[in-house]
Amino acid sequence: MNPEPTVVVLSGGVGGAKFADGLYQLLPKGNLTVCVNTGDDFNLFGLNISPDLDTVCYALAGREDPNTGWGQAGETWSVLNAISDLGGPVWFKLGDKDLATHLERTRLLGEGYPLTEITARICSRFGIQATILPMSDQNVRTLVDTEEFGLIPFQEYFVKKSCEPKVRGFQYQGISDAKPAVGLIDAINEADVVIIGPSNPLVSIEPILRVAGIRKALLEKRVVAVSPIIGGKTVKGPLAKMYKELGNLPSAATVAEGYRGLIQGYVMDSIDRDLSAQIDQWDIITLVTDTLMKSPLDRVILARKVIEFIQKELSG
Amino acid sequence: MNPEPTVVVLSGGVGGAKFADGLYQLLPKGNLTVCVNTGDDFNLFGLNISPDLDTVCYALAGREDPNTGWGQAGETWSVLNAISDLGGPVWFKLGDKDLATHLERTRLLGEGYPLTEITARICSRFGIQATILPMSDQNVRTLVDTEEFGLIPFQEYFVKKSCEPKVRGFQYQGISDAKPAVGLIDAINEADVVIIGPSNPLVSIEPILRVAGIRKALLEKRVVAVSPIIGGKTVKGPLAKMYKELGNLPSAATVAEGYRGLIQGYVMDSIDRDLSAQIDQWDIITLVTDTLMKSPLDRVILARKVIEFIQKELSG
Repeated sequence: MNPEPTVVVLSGGVGGAKFADGLYQLLPKGNLTVCVNTGDDFNLFGLNISPDLDTVCYALAGREDPNTGWGQAGETWSVLNAISDLGGPVWFKLGDKDLATHLERTRLLGEGYPLTEITARICSRFGIQATILPMSDQNVRTLVDTEEFGLIPFQEYFVKKSCEPKVRGFQYQGISDAKPAVGLIDAINEADVVIIGPSNPLVSIEPILRVAGIRKALLEKRVVAVSPIIGGKTVKGPLAKMYKELGNLPSAATVAEGYRGLIQGYVMDSIDRDLSAQIDQWDIITLVTDTLMKSPLDRVILARKVIEFIQKELSG
Repeated sequence: MNPEPTVVVLSGGVGGAKFADGLYQLLPKGNLTVCVNTGDDFNLFGLNISPDLDTVCYALAGREDPNTGWGQAGETWSVLNAISDLGGPVWFKLGDKDLATHLERTRLLGEGYPLTEITARICSRFGIQATILPMSDQNVRTLVDTEEFGLIPFQEYFVKKSCEPKVRGFQYQGISDAKPAVGLIDAINEADVVIIGPSNPLVSIEPILRVAGIRKALLEKRVVAVSPIIGGKTVKGPLAKMYKELGNLPSAATVAEGYRGLIQGYVMDSIDRDLSAQIDQWDIITLVTDTLMKSPLDRVILARKVIEFIQKELSG
């Protein structure tokens, strides 16, 4: 394989963004395309908010808040405080800098620009030398089917209700009309490898895979996934809780099983080494290594291990 | 007349807001209704912005920026700076606190609340004990007909192009479908007097007067206007320049002439005393006094003089 491979990585929010940033630091500029889930997008105060896209952009721009993984470093909260004074809703933490992104995105969408082009413009302004693509320019809205409230929009489940409602399933509203972002299928076709980042398979990766043509394009490629579950727990987010509520074991093996038929390689944490024998039986080659990304350096180290694993084990 | 009269004042932005604030400080709480022009309203970044309503609300709440007359005291600019970094438009000065008002208004409009109710809610939050009403819940958009650019939205003329284009006339888009705000006609009918504040007659007062039923209601009332022109100049805004471009003298008499048949009293500055004889011939009684409002106290003093003038000269 190309000693400096071209990579498409599929990503949701914080975990995927950190891993994408590791690849971005590691690979030659121009070799990375990040395909980002937009099923979490929503509208608040009339603004079009794309949380995962922003998290990825801020991470690759070196602007992310190191304490939260989302939002921007040195963020201020003047507007949100004033909204609170007015009695408005403040459950979604809109920082002042973050708001500028939402306002400018909303303005350009209103002028008819597709989300792909708007994202490219923001990346350019941020000096990002990777291609960040929304999975689609059409609206897809992930709905969480909960026992208590029925179907609710993802951000209401995730932020407003702190992932507390018990989950019965998911719907991806608009998915049947969603076309892949311009350039995405070409990027997949031309990539040396596609990596599914350590994001939630149910609500971050599944919407991407359901966009027309994406799964089909991936079936022609070498695909590797990185487990978002470490020792039965998720580093961030509700995946382990969701698995339990849906009757599945919250384990790295459950993630791999969900990707059977799609991936040839799987990267899992050392703590889960006992699961690798089971996963090997599904014709998936495993890399067992330390996968927790605590520092920016950890991201690059993990990215390098994954790329070396692909070059060594999956170049045939 | 009632020694503590009930008053409806018609207002545009800064000048009208200062005068309305003088009346608010002077009159018993509950005796004042401010009817505000919404022809200047516009949409930017997907937000519904009502500049005149906000200027009036901030003034009566004691929150206005004392240096500009618009916007809020102690305003910060985090969002606008970040928008500038993104290459977005920054010609309209959106402060952080001000943005909160636009966001909450836009959110509530999106939920189906009429502008009147939203304004009442904001007033309540700000502790304002006067009734502030938009002229209408329906959208009216004042367009300025310019020689250079043809018809352009008011805020583009006023802020983006700094009132530089030569004016040929105005259009009030949507005016024929605009109904007066709920409660406005009742407030006029029940008021002891209606005062037209020192606002631009062409772009602040004319849209109000053109809303169905408002002029008719005023014709049944005692109406007094305060001149926005002092010594041939406007304290703020493009009225004098507009008058010249439209072939009129920029004078306090031109304003009064425009209100002939509608007003019985007219308040003009001492510097313009020579014009009062001409105005008297139109069956308009004049009060010649100092009208420039430099300080908060000036507002109350002017309001008291106007109310005393009405009680003395127009109570018949």
